[in-house]
Amino acid sequence: MICTGLVFFMHLGFSFLEIGLTRQKNTINILFKNLFIICIGLLLYSLVGFNLMYPGAFNGVLGSAGIGLHEPLINNSLDLSYNKGYTYWTDFLFQGMFAATAATIVSGAVAERIKLSSFMIFTIIYVGLIYPITGSWKWGGGFLNNWGFYDFAGSTLVHSVGGWAALVAISLLGARLGKFDEKGKPRAIPGHNLPTATAGVLILWLGWFGFNGGSVLSADPGATSLVLVTTSIAAASGGIGAFIFSCILYDNHDLTMFLNGILGGLVAITAGANLMSPSEAVLIGIVAGLLVVIGIAFVDRILKLDDPVGAVAVHLICGIFGTLSVGIFGKLASWNQFSIQLAGLLIIGAFCCSTAYIILYLLKKTMGIRVSKREEIEGLDIHEHGGMEAYPDFRLNQH
Amino acid sequence: MICTGLVFFMHLGFSFLEIGLTRQKNTINILFKNLFIICIGLLLYSLVGFNLMYPGAFNGVLGSAGIGLHEPLINNSLDLSYNKGYTYWTDFLFQGMFAATAATIVSGAVAERIKLSSFMIFTIIYVGLIYPITGSWKWGGGFLNNWGFYDFAGSTLVHSVGGWAALVAISLLGARLGKFDEKGKPRAIPGHNLPTATAGVLILWLGWFGFNGGSVLSADPGATSLVLVTTSIAAASGGIGAFIFSCILYDNHDLTMFLNGILGGLVAITAGANLMSPSEAVLIGIVAGLLVVIGIAFVDRILKLDDPVGAVAVHLICGIFGTLSVGIFGKLASWNQFSIQLAGLLIIGAFCCSTAYIILYLLKKTMGIRVSKREEIEGLDIHEHGGMEAYPDFRLNQH
Amino acid sequence: MICTGLVFFMHLGFSFLEIGLTRQKNTINILFKNLFIICIGLLLYSLVGFNLMYPGAFNGVLGSAGIGLHEPLINNSLDLSYNKGYTYWTDFLFQGMFAATAATIVSGAVAERIKLSSFMIFTIIYVGLIYPITGSWKWGGGFLNNWGFYDFAGSTLVHSVGGWAALVAISLLGARLGKFDEKGKPRAIPGHNLPTATAGVLILWLGWFGFNGGSVLSADPGATSLVLVTTSIAAASGGIGAFIFSCILYDNHDLTMFLNGILGGLVAITAGANLMSPSEAVLIGIVAGLLVVIGIAFVDRILKLDDPVGAVAVHLICGIFGTLSVGIFGKLASWNQFSIQLAGLLIIGAFCCSTAYIILYLLKKTMGIRVSKREEIEGLDIHEHGGMEAYPDFRLNQH
Repeated sequence: MICTGLVFFMHLGFSFLEIGLTRQKNTINILFKNLFIICIGLLLYSLVGFNLMYPGAFNGVLGSAGIGLHEPLINNSLDLSYNKGYTYWTDFLFQGMFAATAATIVSGAVAERIKLSSFMIFTIIYVGLIYPITGSWKWGGGFLNNWGFYDFAGSTLVHSVGGWAALVAISLLGARLGKFDEKGKPRAIPGHNLPTATAGVLILWLGWFGFNGGSVLSADPGATSLVLVTTSIAAASGGIGAFIFSCILYDNHDLTMFLNGILGGLVAITAGANLMSPSEAVLIGIVAGLLVVIGIAFVDRILKLDDPVGAVAVHLICGIFGTLSVGIFGKLASWNQFSIQLAGLLIIGAFCCSTAYIILYLLKKTMGIRVSKREEIEGLDIHEHGGMEAYPDFRLNQH
Repeated sequence: MICTGLVFFMHLGFSFLEIGLTRQKNTINILFKNLFIICIGLLLYSLVGFNLMYPGAFNGVLGSAGIGLHEPLINNSLDLSYNKGYTYWTDFLFQGMFAATAATIVSGAVAERIKLSSFMIFTIIYVGLIYPITGSWKWGGGFLNNWGFYDFAGSTLVHSVGGWAALVAISLLGARLGKFDEKGKPRAIPGHNLPTATAGVLILWLGWFGFNGGSVLSADPGATSLVLVTTSIAAASGGIGAFIFSCILYDNHDLTMFLNGILGGLVAITAGANLMSPSEAVLIGIVAGLLVVIGIAFVDRILKLDDPVGAVAVHLICGIFGTLSVGIFGKLASWNQFSIQLAGLLIIGAFCCSTAYIILYLLKKTMGIRVSKREEIEGLDIHEHGGMEAYPDFRLNQH
Repeated sequence: MICTGLVFFMHLGFSFLEIGLTRQKNTINILFKNLFIICIGLLLYSLVGFNLMYPGAFNGVLGSAGIGLHEPLINNSLDLSYNKGYTYWTDFLFQGMFAATAATIVSGAVAERIKLSSFMIFTIIYVGLIYPITGSWKWGGGFLNNWGFYDFAGSTLVHSVGGWAALVAISLLGARLGKFDEKGKPRAIPGHNLPTATAGVLILWLGWFGFNGGSVLSADPGATSLVLVTTSIAAASGGIGAFIFSCILYDNHDLTMFLNGILGGLVAITAGANLMSPSEAVLIGIVAGLLVVIGIAFVDRILKLDDPVGAVAVHLICGIFGTLSVGIFGKLASWNQFSIQLAGLLIIGAFCCSTAYIILYLLKKTMGIRVSKREEIEGLDIHEHGGMEAYPDFRLNQH
């Protein structure tokens, strides 16, 4: 229950990170989007998602336990005990808070140029259907679970599910005006509020205590406390790794790299937080830190895509690494496990990419997914939110 | 104990919401007011409030267990067990954190024009005496409790107690300069920091996990987890409800309506969070969302009152609705219960309004409750806080 | 485990307080420093610190349990139970979060002028070696523990250890340009974001629930809940005390005094939070509030030192008072205890001052500890962080 609160609080972390790393003129829009994700995500998950994800006995690919929340009855009376360590309601709420996370990851990548209405429709479909279906394959007891695929708290099921959609979305959406010069060279568009972004990352780190700690799904102190240690150590080494590597590469103490390195470490340890020793967590964190620095450059310079917050590098690339690391490090390390991990993430990747592509392509062809040039230049707050400003008492630079 | 921490954290939420929705020139004043409320509220509650509110056996209207904290002795030795699930000290701290909330609600409504010294005196009397007296009628085992009045975590005892005083205070205080034009038409005075306001609401939502979750006053996982689910679902549907309704009415994606809708849903579910099913929580949330949108317009346009943060709509109107909803939805729904709920809220409303009126009227006639025109125009920070500025490094617009 | 999360969250509180009370041009630098402290602190503590601090049976002055984390084996199998109420991993993580705190205290005092690289080296040595060595003298079962020195949650072992180093550092470092006029009269350099600073203090208060609550190191509800009550009451009276006293002295409602008063109360109660009655906590809080107001003036006007956030007054002076208060108030009050407390804090003070002096003196003579005049005037963000700005969309005043 406490972990549920912490996972809920992650949404403030994501919102703060996203507004901090973008421009002030789109702040209200981003806050609105994120509030919408939390609220609609929870309601959809109660209506269909939880039932799709935990359908009970099913064919392993697609099943549903019906519509709405209904606590399992045992001998015709409500079974408040449910499973050892948590109740049906706790389980729903914890999983519901997870579900919205997938859409939040996309939100950061498409920020500052996506049409609000199209994003809301995308969120409804992706959080309401796609996330719980892939989730059911493993956590719902589906075919990936039967194969032995391992994903402790969602490096694949949460982070890469969001990350793949983010990748597809920024490909279809195009870069923000001014992100690339006429020669295709990327330019930095600095975020408008770094303290807010930093607070976001520290809140996310705290939230991960709940995310990973709660995924033990019981209050076994030994297992849970080891998970918190590996989680924190991976975060710390992710930050230090990204700091050192960006120092070497760019000769710069870059705060945003440090921040994304911490997040990368957290995402990477998520798949096997309960399998790793502290020293393996250090290794995973450092590699994740490196991957973040390289990954951001790769998305920017090689793929020529515009990802304002680094969501693809953090959630997709580190999510993939984290999933594979279960086969490389820790208690389950083996070639066999590695190939199962690889297979699982490829299948989920293919499914997420294709569904995200279909949804976004249809939206693009019908109502459009991108705001007009004028709206983008003047800011989404003015155009989509009735002229509301995030900071009306401050004098601002427009860019 | 954890819930106590979360309820404490709500004070940061209230502070952030209040400064976010007001102008930068009064930011220090608001932060100061709120810190004062927390500190003095806790000290007063330890001195007199807790004893007034939980007097033990009493006449049902007014009683006291003395002055200061003294743990109940059992057989001449300290009884550390107190009640099942929590200790005397936890109980005090949890209730003390609640107490200050009532004054915080008033604080938002009177922001940007009330005299600091008068507000401090009002807070001392209202938190020290009025709140615990009304609290004793129900939670202390008084006459409302004997009638069967139901208020799980304080839609009436906390939120409407604050809301009634807010209504009285803004009537006596008058509107901020510039809020109404010469024809009496309300003008929007936009808040200066919407990210802060949004953070405030998300922190409050988290805090409500403690507020409602802790009001189970035990760690029964079944009951507590259901309460967390109904609370979260009401918040989510409150937000979505206010969003949709303000979209229809004003054709606008208004962030502040979304925020207040979430709060309205939280306030409304508070009276019966443990009585409702998830689908009833959705209903209560949506109605609360509508009530917030209508209520803010009603206060603004019909009552011609100036409530900068929407405290009356959120805490009073949704508090009333929440209290009545116990008689309409959920396990206790009946005409009989509805009339008890109505009677209870009317009695408490009459008591709160008259006492708040007397205190504020006397303050108005003696030391005054409103700052001078010049202070209001130039900002309370400069005049009441020795020229301190909240953001001295930023260039600001004055309005 | 929950408390560990709360203590982790204190780092956001410290960061927010520190950036809020300093100028915008050094914001990124401060955030970077603080992230570095958290990450490296945790990693160092896992490598050497925890083993130095809890060496098992040792000579009472210096010992080590080796390198890295290795859970104690019992009969050749991992002992997940460790001690009653917490596991080896929880213990490590909780203590590791504490360790970084000592460096964070220094960070605030040296802000806006220290060289990033030198500070990082100082942090590595101080957090990696000095903090755990002094810690071992008491919490590791060393000689101070044998003498009967009492320090419940670290008024001395955490706060004064940080405070002494802060005092030494600001002496060696010198004041910020413009802090003292040509006659040596101190001038106020106002902090650039008071809402952030206030949020920092409220987050720290919440974190102290974990800091002190967790130091019970078990979940005994009676003891823990009393600790939360004394902690909160001391914070509240610290705030009110500082408010009243600064009102009397300066005729001003000074928000930063209120904030530092709350922190002073928290620091002071930390040594004996489980020994005091609520009324003793009120007393300790009020005295701490007074000490903060006097202490800040003393550092500023008598010592002519520049401590931007008031770290010496809050952490050192109130830490000393808190340590001594164990001999004056509460269950252990006696002349004998008082002299042990005094001896303990003097020994630790001498050790901290001399080691901090040696480290910083060597750094000063070799690589230098202070940025150039130009860097200081133009801001550390531009010079140490590749021209990054904390708030690029806002128009700013330079000072």
